[in-house]
Amino acid sequence: MVDNYFSIGIDFGTESGRVLLVNVHSGSIEAIKVIPYRHGVIEDTLPINKQRIPKGSVLQHPGDYLHVLKEGVAHVLAESKVNPTHIIGIGVDFTSSTIVPVDHTLTPLCFYSNYHQSPHSWVKLWKHHHTKAETEKIYRVATQRKEKWMRKLGYNISEEWMIPKILEVFEQDREIYTHTAYYLEAVDWIVSILASKVSRNNCSLGFKAFWNEKDGYPEEFFTAIDPEFGKTILPKLAGEVKNIGECAGYLTEEWARKLSLPVNLPISTGVIDAHSAVLGTGVYQSGELLMVMGTSTCHMMLHSEEKEIPGISGVVKDAIIPGLYAYEAGQSAVGDLFGSYIKNHVPESYKQEADKQGVSMFDYLEKKAAKLSPGESGLIALDWHNGNRSILSNTDLSGCLIGLTLHTKPEAIFRTYLESTAFGANMIIGAYRDWGMDVREVVACGGLPQANKLLMQLYADILNMPIHVSQSNYAPAIGAAILGAVAAGRINNGYDDMEAAIRYMAQPIEKTYYPIKKHVEVYQQLFAHYKELHDYFGMKRLSMMRNLKHGIDKETETIY
Amino acid sequence: MVDNYFSIGIDFGTESGRVLLVNVHSGSIEAIKVIPYRHGVIEDTLPINKQRIPKGSVLQHPGDYLHVLKEGVAHVLAESKVNPTHIIGIGVDFTSSTIVPVDHTLTPLCFYSNYHQSPHSWVKLWKHHHTKAETEKIYRVATQRKEKWMRKLGYNISEEWMIPKILEVFEQDREIYTHTAYYLEAVDWIVSILASKVSRNNCSLGFKAFWNEKDGYPEEFFTAIDPEFGKTILPKLAGEVKNIGECAGYLTEEWARKLSLPVNLPISTGVIDAHSAVLGTGVYQSGELLMVMGTSTCHMMLHSEEKEIPGISGVVKDAIIPGLYAYEAGQSAVGDLFGSYIKNHVPESYKQEADKQGVSMFDYLEKKAAKLSPGESGLIALDWHNGNRSILSNTDLSGCLIGLTLHTKPEAIFRTYLESTAFGANMIIGAYRDWGMDVREVVACGGLPQANKLLMQLYADILNMPIHVSQSNYAPAIGAAILGAVAAGRINNGYDDMEAAIRYMAQPIEKTYYPIKKHVEVYQQLFAHYKELHDYFGMKRLSMMRNLKHGIDKETETIY
Repeated sequence: MVDNYFSIGIDFGTESGRVLLVNVHSGSIEAIKVIPYRHGVIEDTLPINKQRIPKGSVLQHPGDYLHVLKEGVAHVLAESKVNPTHIIGIGVDFTSSTIVPVDHTLTPLCFYSNYHQSPHSWVKLWKHHHTKAETEKIYRVATQRKEKWMRKLGYNISEEWMIPKILEVFEQDREIYTHTAYYLEAVDWIVSILASKVSRNNCSLGFKAFWNEKDGYPEEFFTAIDPEFGKTILPKLAGEVKNIGECAGYLTEEWARKLSLPVNLPISTGVIDAHSAVLGTGVYQSGELLMVMGTSTCHMMLHSEEKEIPGISGVVKDAIIPGLYAYEAGQSAVGDLFGSYIKNHVPESYKQEADKQGVSMFDYLEKKAAKLSPGESGLIALDWHNGNRSILSNTDLSGCLIGLTLHTKPEAIFRTYLESTAFGANMIIGAYRDWGMDVREVVACGGLPQANKLLMQLYADILNMPIHVSQSNYAPAIGAAILGAVAAGRINNGYDDMEAAIRYMAQPIEKTYYPIKKHVEVYQQLFAHYKELHDYFGMKRLSMMRNLKHGIDKETETIY
Repeated sequence: MVDNYFSIGIDFGTESGRVLLVNVHSGSIEAIKVIPYRHGVIEDTLPINKQRIPKGSVLQHPGDYLHVLKEGVAHVLAESKVNPTHIIGIGVDFTSSTIVPVDHTLTPLCFYSNYHQSPHSWVKLWKHHHTKAETEKIYRVATQRKEKWMRKLGYNISEEWMIPKILEVFEQDREIYTHTAYYLEAVDWIVSILASKVSRNNCSLGFKAFWNEKDGYPEEFFTAIDPEFGKTILPKLAGEVKNIGECAGYLTEEWARKLSLPVNLPISTGVIDAHSAVLGTGVYQSGELLMVMGTSTCHMMLHSEEKEIPGISGVVKDAIIPGLYAYEAGQSAVGDLFGSYIKNHVPESYKQEADKQGVSMFDYLEKKAAKLSPGESGLIALDWHNGNRSILSNTDLSGCLIGLTLHTKPEAIFRTYLESTAFGANMIIGAYRDWGMDVREVVACGGLPQANKLLMQLYADILNMPIHVSQSNYAPAIGAAILGAVAAGRINNGYDDMEAAIRYMAQPIEKTYYPIKKHVEVYQQLFAHYKELHDYFGMKRLSMMRNLKHGIDKETETIY
C-alpha cells in the first residue's frame, strides 16, 4: 500500500479564512476549518480606538490573517490526525488587491503604537473605495502618455488596484508612506513571512500593479504622476517575483514550530483567489472560462493567444497556467443584486408566505420565478446596480428596469434580475468572441451556482452553452493546495507539472445545465434588447447616468 | 330675505354614484349621498348567473344607476329638508365612454331574460378593454382613408371609445346588435329616461364617437369599416344632440313621482365627469388647465383657439363652455401607479414601521420621500405602467426605472414615481405650448391633490407653475349642479349664462403650491432626461417595448 501525502491550501476571503488539508492523490478534502476574521471588515472605526475612518475606507487587521493561519492549520492537523511529515507543501490564495504596509522586518505598520492611529497603517481591503481622486489622476496621466501597460488592463484603472491604494497614502499620509518599507499584496505578505524573504507573485502584479514580465514596473510613469513618488515607490515594490506554480521558498524554523509543520516545507507562490479557483475547478485549457459567482462574479479565462481587449480587466501571461494567458473580467453585482432586491423590495405578503412554507425568500422567489416562461414578464433589466466592471469599466453606471406595469409581480422582477446577470455574462463572452477568441467551455463555481437551479438554467439558456457546475464550495483553497503540491514537486511526492496536479486534485463537475432550445430563441431576442440598452445607457448616453449619479453638469446644458 | 334655490348634481363614477344638493346662490353643498353600485365593476361573471365573461370585459348593471338616482335623491331631500319646489334643475355627469344598449322604450337589453345571457346586452364600462381587434381595424381604415375627424382626436383611437365598443357587438353578437335600438352614453341614457326622449350631448359625441358639430357622424367611414355596419349604425346613434349648458328636456310625471321632484323640472344635457369637474372647480377661461387627479389623471383645458394636436385625446367646440374649445388629455396611471407600488414592492420592515406609527403606507412613504432633495436618489422613471395616453397614445408602452443601485430605498422609488407623473403632465403642457397655446393657470382636483402635499409641491416644482388645489372633492357633481342651474335659466331662479353660474357655484381654491426656484432648476435638468427617455422608448425604440409586451416579432430579427 502506498503512503498518502497531503497539501495545505489556505484561502483568505473577505470575511473569513479557510484552511484545507487535501489529499494530493485523490483531491479529497481530509479536513477543513473556516475561521471568521476577529475584526471582520473594518468600515467605521479603527480597532485600537473609536477613531472614525473616512467613508469609503475599508480596512482589515493583519493579525486576523495570522490567527487563521495558526488556528486553522492546528485544527486540520488535529482533526485529520495526518502525520505532519506527510504534508508536502502549502499554498495560499487571497482577495486582491488587498495591501499590507510593512517595515523591513515584514511587520505591518499597524502593529506599532506610533503608527496605528493612522488608517493608512492598516490593511486596505480590495473593496477599499477611498481612492477615487488618485485613480482618476492615474487614469488621466496614463491615457495622456498612452501607457502601453494599459492595453493589458483593458484600457482602464480600477480603484481597487494596488497603485491607487499606495498613491492614496503618498498623498494623504506621507509619514506612513515614508516609513513603509514594502507594500505587499496580503498573499505575498503571508508567503513572505512564512519563508522569511520578500516574495511576490506575477498574478497579482500583472493584474493589479501595472507590472508585466517584459517591462517590469512603469518607472517613468510613476515619475510622471509625481517626481517624488517615482523616486520612492520602486524599493517599496521590490522583492523576488515568481510565477504561479513556482516554489516561493521554504518554511522557516520559527513558523514550522508555530504551525507544527516540517521545517523547509515548500511554499507555493501566492495567487489571487479567483485565479486559484480556476485550478481548483480543473479549468486549465485554452478556451475554458470559469465564473466564480458570489456577491459579484469573476470571469477567469485561459487562452493561448494574447489580445488586448478593452473592458477586460486584464491579461497576464503565465498568471495561472504556464504557457497560457490568463484573462480576468468581472460583474460588480450578482448575488449582491439579488440580495439587495430581497432586502429592500419584496412585500410583506411574500415574507409571510415564505415564512409559512418555512423557506428562505430566495428559494420562495426562485420557485415562483421558475413558473414564468422566458419573456413572459415583459421586463428587461440592466444589472448595473453596482456599476459595470466588464466590459464598460464604469462605476457611474446604475441599474435599470424596463417594462414595468401596474401588475408586475416581485417574482417577475427577481427573475429579470437573474436573467440580467446572465446577459451581462454574455456581453463578456461576446467581447472575447468579437476579438476572435473561442470560448469553448463554461464552468461555474462559488456560492451561487450549487444552490440555484433556475439561475444556472437561465445562464445555460442565455449563454446558449452547457454550464458545468463544480462540486467544490472551496475551489480557491483547493487551487492553493494544488499549488502547494506543485511547489513540492515530484521529488517530494507532489507534481512537477500543473496539469497533472489538476487532473488528480481538482474537484469534479457536479452537474451540467444544458440550454433549452425554445428558451434560447426567446433569450436571443431579449439579449438583442439588452445589448441595445447596454450601448445606449453605457456608451451613447453615458452622460445621462453620470448626471443622475453625480447631479447636474454642463453637458446637459449644452445638449438641451 | 330672499328665498334659497337649489340644483341637484349627480355624478356617476366607476364604483359609486354621488348625489349632491347645491345652493345655487352660494355653491354650498346642502346634502350629499354617496351610493356604491350594488354590482360594482363586473369583470368575472354576469350578475344573472355564474357565466364567465371574456377576460378584459368590464361591465356594469344599469339597474345600479337607477338605484343611485332613486335612493340618492330621496336621501338628499330628506337630509336637507329643502322644499322640492325650490329645486330648480338637475344635472348629470358620468364616466365615459360607458355604453348602454337599449330598445325603443329606452329599456336596457340586459333587463330582458331573452338577452341577458349575452355579455353584450349589459353596460360596457369605460375601461372595458375587450375591443383591441376592433380598435385596430378602425385605426387602420381611418388612417388609410385619412379621415378628417381623426385630427380632432389626436390622430388616435382609444379602445375605450364608443364606436369600438359598438363594433365589438356588431362583430361578435349580431343578434344583440340588431335588437339594440340605440347605443347611448350612460349619461345620455339617464337624461333620456328622465325626459322621455332620446337626448345626446355634444361633449361625449365629440370626444368619444367620431362626431363633430360640422360633419356629424362619418357615415362613409362606417361603410368602409363594413357595408352592413354602415347601413345599420346611424339609427342606433340617432337622437337630439344638445350642447353642454343647454336644457335637454323636462322631468316626466313618472320620474317626478319616483323622485319626489317637481314635474317638468329642467334637466341639463349630460356631460363627461372630468369635463364637469372643469365647471365645478371654476376653470372656465381660455388657457386654464384642470388636472383631475385620481387613479389616472385627466387634463382638461379650455382655449379660444382650435388646434389639432397629435396625442391630445380630443378637441371639441362648445363641449364645456360655449365659445371655447375643450381639450382633453390624459395620463393612464397616477394614483394607480403609487398604489401598485405600495401593494407589490414595499418591504415588510416598512409595513411594520408604518403600523407602529399608525399611519398609512402612503403617508409613511411620503414623509420619508419628502426628506430627499430633488435629484438626490439618482433615479428617474417613465410613468407608463398602464401605457401612455397623452401624448403618445400607446397602450403597448410600459414603465421604466433608471438609476437603481444596491442601496436604492423604497421611498426613493416612491418619490421618483411621484415625480414621473409630474414629468408626464409637463410633457402634455409642453405639447400645448409647442402648438403655440398658452397654459396660464393649472388647477388640480380629485382624490389625490388634497391629501398629498409632497405630490403637489413636486408638480409646482416640475411644471414651474403655481398649482391651485380646488377645495371640493366633488367637483364633477358640483359641475353637474351648475349645469342644472343653467338649464333652469334665470327665469327659474337659475342662470342664463355659464360664467355667472360658475362664479356663484364653483368651489374655491383651497391652497396654492408655488415653485421653489432651487428645485425648479434641478427638475428642469431631470426633465430633459425624462424627455429623452420618453422619445427613445416611446418613439425611436417603440418596437422594443412592443416586443417586451407582446413577444418576439420580425422587427427585432431584421434590426439585429
